[in-house]
Amino acid sequence: MKKVNVGFIGLGARGHDLLRDIVLEIEHVDVVSVCDGYEDRALVGADIVKEKRGMEPACETDYRKVIDNPQVEAVVIATAWESHVEIALYAMNAGKAVAMEVGGAYNLQECWDLVDTYERTKTPFMFLENCCYGRRELMVLNMVQQGVFGEIVHCSGGYHHDLRKEISGGGENRHYRLRNYLARNAENYPTHELGPIAKVLGINHGNRMVSLTSTASKAVGLHEYIQKTRPAEDELQNAVFKQGDVVTTVIRCANGETIVLTLDTTLPRFYSRGFTIRGTKGMYEEATDSIFLDCEEDIKDDFTWLKKRCGNAESYEEKYEHPIWKQFLGDGVQGSHGGMDWLVFNAFFDALLANEPMPIDVYDAAAWMAVTALSEKSIAEGSAPVEFPDFTRGKWMK
Amino acid sequence: MKKVNVGFIGLGARGHDLLRDIVLEIEHVDVVSVCDGYEDRALVGADIVKEKRGMEPACETDYRKVIDNPQVEAVVIATAWESHVEIALYAMNAGKAVAMEVGGAYNLQECWDLVDTYERTKTPFMFLENCCYGRRELMVLNMVQQGVFGEIVHCSGGYHHDLRKEISGGGENRHYRLRNYLARNAENYPTHELGPIAKVLGINHGNRMVSLTSTASKAVGLHEYIQKTRPAEDELQNAVFKQGDVVTTVIRCANGETIVLTLDTTLPRFYSRGFTIRGTKGMYEEATDSIFLDCEEDIKDDFTWLKKRCGNAESYEEKYEHPIWKQFLGDGVQGSHGGMDWLVFNAFFDALLANEPMPIDVYDAAAWMAVTALSEKSIAEGSAPVEFPDFTRGKWMK
Repeated sequence: MKKVNVGFIGLGARGHDLLRDIVLEIEHVDVVSVCDGYEDRALVGADIVKEKRGMEPACETDYRKVIDNPQVEAVVIATAWESHVEIALYAMNAGKAVAMEVGGAYNLQECWDLVDTYERTKTPFMFLENCCYGRRELMVLNMVQQGVFGEIVHCSGGYHHDLRKEISGGGENRHYRLRNYLARNAENYPTHELGPIAKVLGINHGNRMVSLTSTASKAVGLHEYIQKTRPAEDELQNAVFKQGDVVTTVIRCANGETIVLTLDTTLPRFYSRGFTIRGTKGMYEEATDSIFLDCEEDIKDDFTWLKKRCGNAESYEEKYEHPIWKQFLGDGVQGSHGGMDWLVFNAFFDALLANEPMPIDVYDAAAWMAVTALSEKSIAEGSAPVEFPDFTRGKWMK
Repeated sequence: MKKVNVGFIGLGARGHDLLRDIVLEIEHVDVVSVCDGYEDRALVGADIVKEKRGMEPACETDYRKVIDNPQVEAVVIATAWESHVEIALYAMNAGKAVAMEVGGAYNLQECWDLVDTYERTKTPFMFLENCCYGRRELMVLNMVQQGVFGEIVHCSGGYHHDLRKEISGGGENRHYRLRNYLARNAENYPTHELGPIAKVLGINHGNRMVSLTSTASKAVGLHEYIQKTRPAEDELQNAVFKQGDVVTTVIRCANGETIVLTLDTTLPRFYSRGFTIRGTKGMYEEATDSIFLDCEEDIKDDFTWLKKRCGNAESYEEKYEHPIWKQFLGDGVQGSHGGMDWLVFNAFFDALLANEPMPIDVYDAAAWMAVTALSEKSIAEGSAPVEFPDFTRGKWMK
């Protein structure tokens, strides 16, 4: 079997785990170079490769050296948000295939640069939105494509994840989220759960996002958490965070659907992606893991329905499990985040080796990442509506 | 015990049930006049009074006659939305106490008229938002007031109720919702769940709503439902509904909190008010009837928490049940909608007889009802932010 020689760039917590648990577990991948701006992290990455594969990779602190390395055929970018695009552009220009971790854009030009560079170079590019490979997300997508929910009208989702400890508790305060939460106020992490929703709504494939409004709550969660958990002399004790605790973004689509996205990372709660799909024939709701289908229900029951059917989505698995997950369950689920990381990386390497189109492409990345820049503008302008560029230049209609 | 002589105005489905199951069950109330614009409904109302109380009420089709009747001391207004304010103003000007059913405002002037007329006449006025008396809503309010959730940052709620049959299946097509859904596109029923949220956030009592944006999805649910359920020759088969199926409204408050309200009445689903309260120390979520408190939880559990604790709100009842509900449970819960109707009507009559301030007053009504007029404007202007008037003229700060 043909193998891909990979350069792995970005070895913070996320990159470290992806390298060890996913990429080095994929048979048809060799990691020939590892890189992080912090040398200590890069060395740890090199050690992991040595341990798991008995190979000595090049160990770099400058991503250019990874990409310029003639051995390297593809790069995984798992760095801090701010450097994703810069590295991806350098790699595409060098003809090195790109698998880029998720994040939001700092401005619309970044999104255009991704699209323009891809169109000029045709270098394969994939956006690693793992939630597109979530088990429920794919089952629901399958049901949508089979028309089970009827015409889709409204979707919601969010990144509901208490990150207070991760953001503030890093000791050296070098977490990329920390500087973003101090300096900006935006829907800073839109792609969970916008990715799966965009697939459901056919964004860039007959549909597109037209405009959004964003509204941020006050920012008090991190400050209270730091006061309670950090030493009195800690420099973060008096830090003023600009990032609102809860940011609500409402998106209108060309075909009349609405999407509500929520960023919710600095207040106490349990984890959720809040994935919800509403159609003329039924709905799926992640919070209660329930599926309500008009054809199966008696309307008179609607006040007591949930008590009886909460969690009933499981009973639809036999009929509607997505083919990708059917096979995955058969082969044995592996990898972190419930298997999603494994699937999204394998999708990239499989498409690359087969020379097929990437399942999450540069137009998806541009449209989804643009939400961050647009939401930052909307919040700054008192929740004013702002328009999405059409990064496909009209090709979404076909 | 002193009794109140009531004129009951509006005997559609809701009014009929309220008269029979609530008002005529309250000992210190006599119903001396009933009224509906449709005579058949008024006659049914009179029959109910005769059956249950052995008294013959005046039976009217013009609300003015009810209010002009010298016997009448207070009126209950349960008419179609569009006549609520007109009748309330007439009653307040006549010095007859008003209990007004909920709905939204058609314009801001209506809200000002309510406030101005109340301030001029000082006639007691109460807004009958029953959800303010929901068991969980009051328990959560009690917990908020005791500081259990910390500083409140974000709330959400909505009216998630499949009304397709009610709106379109009325035979004579005289349901007030039908004409509103044909003619308008707005958050047409904001007060479930804005009422309980406003109480949680202290709206008009140290806080106020400052601005909102509203975004409507396409309107396809009713049309598809009518095509499926009504005869081919039905005049509604070709009706074009202006009301979007899902309307999302995001409100900013003076103290930095955000509120997300959802109107969701024309797609298949189970009933929910989606009541959710987020603070710096914890949260309540109606969908999963769960309470997450920072002080009780291990952050490492946050991915699996819900599986273990879904429905755990019940375990907080012993400690945090609201005094109103403690007594109600002791006395024996009665009345429709899980007891909320009973409580809201008794709150009105008790305050009236005791000459005490109304628990949901004219300023609450004006602020909450204004959402409808403001959302209609925001939707028409492409989700542009619109500002709330300060109906208290600055008194909210005290």
